[in-house]
Amino acid sequence: MEHGLDVGALFLAFAAALVGAKLFGELAERVGQPAVLGELLAGVILGPSVIGLVPLSDAILELAEIGVALLLFEVGLETDLGELAKVGAPALAVALAGMVFPFAGGYGVTLALGHPILTATFVGAALTATSIGITARVLSELKVLATREGQIILGAAVVDDVFGLVVLAIVSKIAGGGRIDAATIVKSGALAIGFLAAALVLGIPLGRRLMGVVERARVRGVLGAMSVAFALFVAWGAKAAESAPIVGAFAAGVALARTNRRHDIDAALKPVVDLFAPVFFVYVGAEVDVRLLNPAVAENRPALVLGLLLAGIGFLGKFAAGFCAWGGVRRAFIGAGMVPRGEVGLIFASVGLTTKALPEPVFVAVLVAVFLTTFVAPPLLKLLRPQPAD
Amino acid sequence: MEHGLDVGALFLAFAAALVGAKLFGELAERVGQPAVLGELLAGVILGPSVIGLVPLSDAILELAEIGVALLLFEVGLETDLGELAKVGAPALAVALAGMVFPFAGGYGVTLALGHPILTATFVGAALTATSIGITARVLSELKVLATREGQIILGAAVVDDVFGLVVLAIVSKIAGGGRIDAATIVKSGALAIGFLAAALVLGIPLGRRLMGVVERARVRGVLGAMSVAFALFVAWGAKAAESAPIVGAFAAGVALARTNRRHDIDAALKPVVDLFAPVFFVYVGAEVDVRLLNPAVAENRPALVLGLLLAGIGFLGKFAAGFCAWGGVRRAFIGAGMVPRGEVGLIFASVGLTTKALPEPVFVAVLVAVFLTTFVAPPLLKLLRPQPAD
Repeated sequence: MEHGLDVGALFLAFAAALVGAKLFGELAERVGQPAVLGELLAGVILGPSVIGLVPLSDAILELAEIGVALLLFEVGLETDLGELAKVGAPALAVALAGMVFPFAGGYGVTLALGHPILTATFVGAALTATSIGITARVLSELKVLATREGQIILGAAVVDDVFGLVVLAIVSKIAGGGRIDAATIVKSGALAIGFLAAALVLGIPLGRRLMGVVERARVRGVLGAMSVAFALFVAWGAKAAESAPIVGAFAAGVALARTNRRHDIDAALKPVVDLFAPVFFVYVGAEVDVRLLNPAVAENRPALVLGLLLAGIGFLGKFAAGFCAWGGVRRAFIGAGMVPRGEVGLIFASVGLTTKALPEPVFVAVLVAVFLTTFVAPPLLKLLRPQPAD
Repeated sequence: MEHGLDVGALFLAFAAALVGAKLFGELAERVGQPAVLGELLAGVILGPSVIGLVPLSDAILELAEIGVALLLFEVGLETDLGELAKVGAPALAVALAGMVFPFAGGYGVTLALGHPILTATFVGAALTATSIGITARVLSELKVLATREGQIILGAAVVDDVFGLVVLAIVSKIAGGGRIDAATIVKSGALAIGFLAAALVLGIPLGRRLMGVVERARVRGVLGAMSVAFALFVAWGAKAAESAPIVGAFAAGVALARTNRRHDIDAALKPVVDLFAPVFFVYVGAEVDVRLLNPAVAENRPALVLGLLLAGIGFLGKFAAGFCAWGGVRRAFIGAGMVPRGEVGLIFASVGLTTKALPEPVFVAVLVAVFLTTFVAPPLLKLLRPQPAD
């Protein structure tokens, strides 16, 4: 019964994250930017490298993880599987191009600068990931989730996240000195894709059954609690199948969107997402160590220059991928939607550092690229947005 | 960026807690019992001593702490400070009697059984605490929060929690071999009470100002986020003032109840409380180690017998305290409302064990007493309830 949890510190950091997110989100809106950009900036300021009110602790990470999972569940609830399937082919094309272009660019430049193949592989791989959290949030804010462009971005981001984690499993194994063969790659990929397919195929009838049971309940708050439990359960399964929990949460949302209680679930979910999703964006912002970004410090410069270069490659690679879409859509907007790297890029960088595949300055450069692409995407999306669907 | 948080395990346990809480809550309701009793039982079954799906980890404790804090914030929002002040005198009488009776009984019996004074002090002190979480939840379920009885119980439970933590600070110091003097006791008590008074005196005008600011915001979910941030901030302050975070959260709710947005805040809060408060009750249930309760195991018997005895004392002491209330109220109901021990009793037991003030069997006996009083209170309250206020 003795615990390491400091409730006081948790509550203070949670409160600070909420106030910071809403304050900077409001300021961002007032200067015509998406609120999420303000929330990211609030994180930079509240994080350990500036004020230090929001630590990068497990306790805050927990709130962030719950926040982003429920956000993706909510986005899934607002997604029509039929519409998503219709854009399946262009979404797949965008996703694949969006992995090949940045990987090739990152790999080539790193190699050309004299780094070993392993380092180049990690840098390339880190640039392939798209942050589904950031993208989904901006699309939702701009009310373009239901447009063709929104659906293509969302579909491509999901594919990207699934493949990205397969790539991560592979490069981690290489970095650890392990051998990999085609069978392992196929197995890992098949598991992640198979789980997603199974979650949808089984999730839709299961979700309907669940709603039937919930209907007969008498206690308070059953619909919300059981829906969230469903989402958490599928998210757990996705993790177990070597995919990302947020992809599972999204699939759970898509499944429950096919029930007759879609809007009631959404209503019960919104206040919870409003409370926890900002913690995720603040947390991502807090991971920026501003001390490494000061160009006045000479030691920072090589990493900054490489970071700018990688950010440029990462940006152009993903942006160009948007032009692989077809069907009378605004392709520049799709490209912009693929740009933010966010959490998966950070995981790549972190694994690369711990396995020594990435030397410290290259690690910092990858972080710079991840954050620059993350911060540039919300204003760019706002600038290029198509008309809302309704 | 390397973390100890296992997101998969967290999501699975959270999902299991939600499903268990709603399933057993529903069953409890169907047999005419308060849902919270079902949630506690769900915790016993899901906890480490039976199925083990909900571990007593920091990650689950975090959800539980957020849940109970927001529950008390919600209860505070539904509390009228004027009505609470009107019953101040009887509430104080009930709280004081509810501390003196169980302390005297627990202390006397433990001493009579041959234990040293320090052990007797800890046992007595552990029996003084009232679980404001359990009580508030049952009162809310029975829709009697706004009755005179409900207000007296709530007021007495708050006083009890504040004093209980002062007592805890004192006995911990004694157990640690430290000297305590009257000045320390007075200082500790004055700090806790002073904070509560300050939170209300400053919280009411601050809350109104906050609502004025919130009104002018454009981003989504500002009211809910800022209100919760306010509650978390006051809860953090309460902890810093050596009081309980939940007492702070309650005070924050009472303060915001005096603003014109009371009902809107409540509406934004309910779905969040529905999701997190059950985790608290499941967590409390999960702390029961059923293996220690098996009377067929001979070694368990002394602790079980002492536990039954202490449960009886704890029950009668608190129940009798209810009869110290006045003003044409149903005093048996008030007594029943003071009975559950819950979290603070567990903290006492745990501190007693680690400081070796409580030998293992006495520690188990205290746990038995805490849990028996906690589990008996919901059905008893339902049985004795007055008519709802509206």
